[in-house]
Amino acid sequence: MPLVRIALRRSASPERIGAIQQSVYQAMREAFNVPQDDRFILVSQHAPEEFIYDPGYLGIDRGDELVIVQITCNAGRTVAQKQALYRRLAELLGASPGLRPEDVFVNLVEVPKENWSFGNGVGQYIDA
Amino acid sequence: MPLVRIALRRSASPERIGAIQQSVYQAMREAFNVPQDDRFILVSQHAPEEFIYDPGYLGIDRGDELVIVQITCNAGRTVAQKQALYRRLAELLGASPGLRPEDVFVNLVEVPKENWSFGNGVGQYIDA
Amino acid sequence: MPLVRIALRRSASPERIGAIQQSVYQAMREAFNVPQDDRFILVSQHAPEEFIYDPGYLGIDRGDELVIVQITCNAGRTVAQKQALYRRLAELLGASPGLRPEDVFVNLVEVPKENWSFGNGVGQYIDA
Repeated sequence: MPLVRIALRRSASPERIGAIQQSVYQAMREAFNVPQDDRFILVSQHAPEEFIYDPGYLGIDRGDELVIVQITCNAGRTVAQKQALYRRLAELLGASPGLRPEDVFVNLVEVPKENWSFGNGVGQYIDA
Repeated sequence: MPLVRIALRRSASPERIGAIQQSVYQAMREAFNVPQDDRFILVSQHAPEEFIYDPGYLGIDRGDELVIVQITCNAGRTVAQKQALYRRLAELLGASPGLRPEDVFVNLVEVPKENWSFGNGVGQYIDA
Repeated sequence: MPLVRIALRRSASPERIGAIQQSVYQAMREAFNVPQDDRFILVSQHAPEEFIYDPGYLGIDRGDELVIVQITCNAGRTVAQKQALYRRLAELLGASPGLRPEDVFVNLVEVPKENWSFGNGVGQYIDA
């Protein structure tokens, strides 16, 4: 149910991208109780001029390894769960592929459960 | 008013992309009463490592032809209208370009009507 | 806090992209009171078949220079502030890089303030 969009600067290896998406998936599993196999992740890689970030906003020292993670998910998580997600994302992306915590940017967009169809022309979470 | 983002695996022909966007537009016209000519659709094509999907989540047999459609639209559609949209998307994309219904993934993001400007520096739906 | 996605037709020069993102940032500073240095902007460039727009919807004469700006930001701006943003975006993008006002399309997606982490595994706007 989460649809994840990950933006990076060019050019990450397939292995690096695989590690990033695996860590994002694992953090969502742990902190947001995302079901097993609920893994839909889009990655976009950008030229430097297409990937604009401030290197010091809020006193955080960001660099070109920055990963911007935007997650569209069902509404209903508590603030504590969101805090846990941010923490686990930084921890797991720190473990693999080895991102600095300063380089993990996250944004959540929440939608009601009837706003998803996982295939077959049906809204699977309606009446679920 | 909908802004549609369609994500695909590389490399679809322009003809195939044209068929996909035409079917998405037609489904929104029919199920969501989207006005004629309200057609703003962005397509991104991804390398395999950038396009992560689960091939079996919820028992649906997805493949590399998967199309992920994220539609930002005005709030206010009923659950029944959303169900009709999912059904028509699968039907029309099945007719052209011939997608299997398992390969149609949809997510809706809803916003209030004052959140759009279609040009000229004006919010055209405000007070409309 | 805003995360901005800007979509363009290929191929804009780095200078042109820089002018666009600078004008978008400046308009958000002025109309939305976005903090200084709060600048996170992703640009995607699309082949013609990937960048579908209607050239006349609502009587606005759009062309291939169209810029589609989707801004995810904190909820809470008034309708008047949104109107001011649309106006300033058209004005500033008109001044640099010289876009016609017809070619400025804007959509806002609003989220609560706990939906952001700017790094370090923390939700910086929580309890702020």
